[in-house]
Amino acid sequence: MNTITVQQAAAFLRARDSYLILTHKRPDGDTIGCAAGLCRGLRALGKTAHICPGTGATHLFTPYLEGLLAPEGYAPDTVVSVDIAARSLFTDAGRPWLERGVDLAFDHHPSQEFFARQTCLDAGRAACGELIYDVLKELGPVTADMAAPLYVAVSTDTGCFQYGNTTAASHRVAAALIDTGLELFPLNKRHFRTKSWARLQVERLITERMHRYEDGRIAVAPVSLSLMDEAGATEEDMEDIAAFLGQIEGVETSVTIREQEGGSCKISVRTSAGLNATRVCALLGGGGHAAAAGCTVDMDLAGAEKAIMEAIHKVEAEG
Amino acid sequence: MNTITVQQAAAFLRARDSYLILTHKRPDGDTIGCAAGLCRGLRALGKTAHICPGTGATHLFTPYLEGLLAPEGYAPDTVVSVDIAARSLFTDAGRPWLERGVDLAFDHHPSQEFFARQTCLDAGRAACGELIYDVLKELGPVTADMAAPLYVAVSTDTGCFQYGNTTAASHRVAAALIDTGLELFPLNKRHFRTKSWARLQVERLITERMHRYEDGRIAVAPVSLSLMDEAGATEEDMEDIAAFLGQIEGVETSVTIREQEGGSCKISVRTSAGLNATRVCALLGGGGHAAAAGCTVDMDLAGAEKAIMEAIHKVEAEG
Repeated sequence: MNTITVQQAAAFLRARDSYLILTHKRPDGDTIGCAAGLCRGLRALGKTAHICPGTGATHLFTPYLEGLLAPEGYAPDTVVSVDIAARSLFTDAGRPWLERGVDLAFDHHPSQEFFARQTCLDAGRAACGELIYDVLKELGPVTADMAAPLYVAVSTDTGCFQYGNTTAASHRVAAALIDTGLELFPLNKRHFRTKSWARLQVERLITERMHRYEDGRIAVAPVSLSLMDEAGATEEDMEDIAAFLGQIEGVETSVTIREQEGGSCKISVRTSAGLNATRVCALLGGGGHAAAAGCTVDMDLAGAEKAIMEAIHKVEAEG
Repeated sequence: MNTITVQQAAAFLRARDSYLILTHKRPDGDTIGCAAGLCRGLRALGKTAHICPGTGATHLFTPYLEGLLAPEGYAPDTVVSVDIAARSLFTDAGRPWLERGVDLAFDHHPSQEFFARQTCLDAGRAACGELIYDVLKELGPVTADMAAPLYVAVSTDTGCFQYGNTTAASHRVAAALIDTGLELFPLNKRHFRTKSWARLQVERLITERMHRYEDGRIAVAPVSLSLMDEAGATEEDMEDIAAFLGQIEGVETSVTIREQEGGSCKISVRTSAGLNATRVCALLGGGGHAAAAGCTVDMDLAGAEKAIMEAIHKVEAEG
């Protein structure tokens, strides 16, 4: 692995030209915001820079890509990836560039696979956007059009400064980005204070149909395909739905069970009071982190609920 | 009016002793957080300092007051108010001190009435907590036990950095507070990522029973006393409920109508697309701000809904 500092990365970007920027698949605000901010920063230096098309961005994030996607047949000299931790996370359109060779990877994941010739990694940052801000600051003045997507990167990856990954540095980068004169409120409104009608119906139906166990310490939401139909919901409306139960006062373990086409069920377990979610899900062939894990079982919703409750009780009994 | 700077206020606090700190009635995180932070800061200087009891704080905020409330019969030399803009906003327990004379008022409201002998006012700050942080920094090192309530002050008054009042300075104060080593995530979880069971039921019932007009641009939620009963909700569960409708995609004007004991209805109107909420509510004898206003009408829920829709249409037609 060949890691470089922010200053070295800035020098590298200043020396080259003709950039293609790659984002990760199932893109979030961080990868899209980093790509847009970096692309605009490079263009402000007079460089040619484009973002690799086929990002798969949902309508929440596509506006930030406007005017930045590479035209067909674009042949870059330098390929840069942002917020991509692993080879398996490249998009279909990005994969050929991985094979050709990525020149520089910017990332903040400890699981970084070092697939690039050079890597600028800071695993202590909550968002890759914080790192890209540091790089752009080295390259010249950061303007509002670069700052807006970087604010989206930092704020969405920290749940608007609420998640456990938030640090003083996240707030300092946000302050510096706001200083550029970006229009802050429309960004917050769009990403944190807007719910689709369908999402609202999903939340209503889950509230109506969820089950609580052990004085409300455990909450289970069975999400059937017919619930999705009734709510008029698509996958886009389901983002972070596993967190919905976790917010209920007194809930320590929350379980979301989603019925799949074909009859199996996907189970997601979140824990906050010491119960190891990975050990629970491992009993049903799954895995994950200590506080968030998942598994897929070949059962209907009722069977899946029974199985996951048994797994929870088993792990609890083992202590 | 006698206004003083942060440095002058710090010098004043350093010179005196035996403090009583007053908070405003129907207290929020800002007034409670400011009082707790300031009280701990003064005690760290070796001063005697207490907060005036009878704050009326809900269970969300009472933990920050622990060990800081004045004992019965406490006779302070110096009375300081935090985040109180007007004489009418003193608590029952605070009112005698207003009559005796408030020595120093800290505030951030442009509507400040200058009831105190000296006022340290910065109407450019999103939260009074930002100002108190500046003062404490002048007085000595800000420690985690002072920083935690000040973080609550700043984060709750900005809706966790989402409201339109948020500035770069809000983020810079947050960063400095986090640097003291306070435990950030439990505070965010408590204030921004926790919903009571009753609140969840209120949201479910409102979603079920709300009415949408004009392709969903206008949303109206009639909240009957029986809805409150059914949800098992108290006033504490209803905080900022008017914002619940405003988050729905496409909603520009949201109206919450709350049935009162005795048969009248309280109407709250929020607008985001140019419609003047004050003009709407003025037609029914109320008032407020351009984007948030209210009125009380002597009608049942259905009558109130009809009346407010007519008022909206009238103001819209006048352009």
